[in-house]
Amino acid sequence: MKLTILGCYSATPRTFTNPTSQVLEIKNHLFLIDCGEGTQVQLRKYKLKFSRIKHIFISHLHGDHFFGLPGLISTFRLLGRDSEMHIYGPKGIKQAVTLLLKLGDSWTNFPLIFHELESKDSELLFEDEKVSVRTVPLEHRVYTNGFVFHEKPAPRTLDVEAAKRLGVDRSQFNNIKNGADGVSNNGETIPNAKLTSDPPKPKSYAFCSDTSYHEPIVPLIEGVDALYHESTFLETESHLCAKTKHSTAKQAAQIAQQAHVGKLILGHYSTRYKSLELFREEAMQVFPNVALADDGKTFEI
Amino acid sequence: MKLTILGCYSATPRTFTNPTSQVLEIKNHLFLIDCGEGTQVQLRKYKLKFSRIKHIFISHLHGDHFFGLPGLISTFRLLGRDSEMHIYGPKGIKQAVTLLLKLGDSWTNFPLIFHELESKDSELLFEDEKVSVRTVPLEHRVYTNGFVFHEKPAPRTLDVEAAKRLGVDRSQFNNIKNGADGVSNNGETIPNAKLTSDPPKPKSYAFCSDTSYHEPIVPLIEGVDALYHESTFLETESHLCAKTKHSTAKQAAQIAQQAHVGKLILGHYSTRYKSLELFREEAMQVFPNVALADDGKTFEI
Repeated sequence: MKLTILGCYSATPRTFTNPTSQVLEIKNHLFLIDCGEGTQVQLRKYKLKFSRIKHIFISHLHGDHFFGLPGLISTFRLLGRDSEMHIYGPKGIKQAVTLLLKLGDSWTNFPLIFHELESKDSELLFEDEKVSVRTVPLEHRVYTNGFVFHEKPAPRTLDVEAAKRLGVDRSQFNNIKNGADGVSNNGETIPNAKLTSDPPKPKSYAFCSDTSYHEPIVPLIEGVDALYHESTFLETESHLCAKTKHSTAKQAAQIAQQAHVGKLILGHYSTRYKSLELFREEAMQVFPNVALADDGKTFEI
Repeated sequence: MKLTILGCYSATPRTFTNPTSQVLEIKNHLFLIDCGEGTQVQLRKYKLKFSRIKHIFISHLHGDHFFGLPGLISTFRLLGRDSEMHIYGPKGIKQAVTLLLKLGDSWTNFPLIFHELESKDSELLFEDEKVSVRTVPLEHRVYTNGFVFHEKPAPRTLDVEAAKRLGVDRSQFNNIKNGADGVSNNGETIPNAKLTSDPPKPKSYAFCSDTSYHEPIVPLIEGVDALYHESTFLETESHLCAKTKHSTAKQAAQIAQQAHVGKLILGHYSTRYKSLELFREEAMQVFPNVALADDGKTFEI
């Protein structure tokens, strides 16, 4: 699982700091999460294969999280895309995108499928045999969701050499990978544990931006390998959190600690601070494994 | 009069080529013309004073000419703007911008005044004592206007030394600048020509993008000092003009020649061509004074 940060700064795009967008590569999917203005340029800059994106998840309808979406969709059209595109986002997103395309008389030549969200409970958005994606309802000034991405457990890893040595025929391999015992040529039962080993532990990632400190998300992101949690402010500006419904780095770390995540990735920084290291220092007083998102940075999860 | 090109490439924003936007500084106004995605970043990059923009002219509602507008308006809000902003553009622009701001629950804290256009005849959009702005109806796939900016004639330039020498009192100066004769201390009439010289010739600029070759614009832009005319293609791709309603560099030059403009500035290039010089070479076969727009380039008119 690989995460590429296209933009992780709050509020407005600037020459060297981009609003929120990231790409998660997971089990052959390329999921786009949020799409601030300039996202399509960032996708080109970091040489991500546009055409492989089939699912776009939008947390909320503030400009710094979705004003890049109409342009990205238009570009897919100009590039001659024909495969389906699924957009998951708050109710209203369909009307907005549809209106902009209609005004330009430039409807897409590929199926554009909107999945509009309005539930305050966690919902399953996408599932196939290898991956699931659920919403993580957040607390912000407008209706907002985070997203949690789980790999599903892989089949058990077959020891082909052991199977041959013990006289287990290939026809049984799929069942054995799924946990069944084997049967040897001479009718002897071979316990699954002698033929397989545990598969790699499935990975998971949660994206939580924008939100105030909101403990109800803890059970939804319990134990994820990596948590991106917004930290717009430092504690010195904690008085701004109530009005703006954002978090401090310390609060992000408190959520990470309660949810027993593997790594906390901070982002959505206010540009008022001189150094990102201040965010890491503050968070590490609460939770040890803290990384700083930055535009163009990648994380292997 | 100073023109700054923020973006002059067609279709999609890329790392080093931006969609259409330009800023015209004219008689203390800072007019923004078109607003493709990323315009606000370009405004910062070229250190143009955001807050001085009070009038934005949008030619048409294709994404590469207006998808940067909602973000720019949002940024004005975040920066605490309180002065009026006037937006001139095709009917529908108000609904689009309003919907996007409403979805983000982020209506502006400054007056946002839309002037929606739907006439196929040239209209006066703005006028004060020094400047006028009119539409130049173009021929494109959707309803599109160019814009022509005219300085008004300045008052005559007073020769203060001559006035003193000839005994003309200061109280007459304003009338004399407006063409009146003077009267000396001893009652003698002093002809205006002895007291003033011609003011600088008023300047004019026309922006015509996007459009197919469209002769009806010629009288509307007659004699402008500088004409920005789109040249998406070269003549080798002229067969694409009919379908896309764009022009070649040669066609832009033919318009420039017929309208007796001072200088032709080419732009809105398709990115299929290796060198912009090809556009200049083609246009110069028809019209001698050709310049190439490029992102970040400025023109003193």
